[in-house]
Amino acid sequence: MSNHQYTMKEAFMFSQRMAQLSKALWKAVEKDWQRWIKPYDLNINEHHILWIAYHLKGASITDVANFGVMHVSTAFNFSKKLEERGFLTFSKKEEDKRNTYIEITKEGEQLIFDLMEQYDPETNLVFSGNEPLRELFGKFPDLAELMAIIKNIYGDDFMDIFETSIHNIEKDFNEESGKLKQAAQTKTSG
Amino acid sequence: MSNHQYTMKEAFMFSQRMAQLSKALWKAVEKDWQRWIKPYDLNINEHHILWIAYHLKGASITDVANFGVMHVSTAFNFSKKLEERGFLTFSKKEEDKRNTYIEITKEGEQLIFDLMEQYDPETNLVFSGNEPLRELFGKFPDLAELMAIIKNIYGDDFMDIFETSIHNIEKDFNEESGKLKQAAQTKTSG
Repeated sequence: MSNHQYTMKEAFMFSQRMAQLSKALWKAVEKDWQRWIKPYDLNINEHHILWIAYHLKGASITDVANFGVMHVSTAFNFSKKLEERGFLTFSKKEEDKRNTYIEITKEGEQLIFDLMEQYDPETNLVFSGNEPLRELFGKFPDLAELMAIIKNIYGDDFMDIFETSIHNIEKDFNEESGKLKQAAQTKTSG
Repeated sequence: MSNHQYTMKEAFMFSQRMAQLSKALWKAVEKDWQRWIKPYDLNINEHHILWIAYHLKGASITDVANFGVMHVSTAFNFSKKLEERGFLTFSKKEEDKRNTYIEITKEGEQLIFDLMEQYDPETNLVFSGNEPLRELFGKFPDLAELMAIIKNIYGDDFMDIFETSIHNIEKDFNEESGKLKQAAQTKTSG
């Protein structure tokens, strides 16, 4: 136990601020996310699982649960549904027979790309909420405090996978720029 | 439509960062919140409703839904349960018969105070996740970017109520300092 120089009042106020702000932010993110994937008949967990399988190029159910911040049983059950719809395949590894691995199929990848094309910042609450900040500072916020708190809670592996998935998006947009640029120009109303 | 100087890639990466970070943060807040209120047989919505009724010194169901970021039906149904347990009373106002108002009872207030006494930063994931930041900068983070985004999404009224509730906590701790200081020194294990 280190020398904590804070009062109980400060600690409690900080926790309450974080609780209120994080609930409000998550509810807006949730609304955006649900609206975005709705035409594809997916829920947030299903899309998150596909997203992880895509970015990690295959993942164990444990990886999915950890990085997707969901229970192992949730990760498994929704992965099963995605398998039934042909978006994922299940496998065991020769050197690790205890864990179940999932891999995204061509159909699953197509779904990920279709959704990237459907993404429309103008209808996104969180994106719009950030606009005055971006216009003021001329860039997207780096959210350094938030990143540091998440890193301390979830650890380095979580942050590594997080950064990997963000860098992959960058590569996808660069490599597929023809495809995705076209999508950005001819947005459908989904 | 203003002159948006961003690429679709940047916008999409920002949205994905916000989605991942906010889900991870909320899941940690949710875990802390549930653990905190568990001994009192409350769920997060119920505690949030009581909290709002306490800080606003009475509120309409619409206020509860807006500030609590929950559906009106959720706000109403859980308020009913709190009324049945004697923590809230329902009323109509003479000048506004269409809206239902809730007011916290003495028992409800006692519950709010008991929970403030039970609060233990050492067992709080988000508080602990912030510790290295607080030690580095010598203060709690102000989360200015996050506050600005929330303000733009939810509006000024939301922020006013948010600030009111935070300032009330400060007053409560000062006025009740004898009571709450004692609680901080003799923490029970819940």
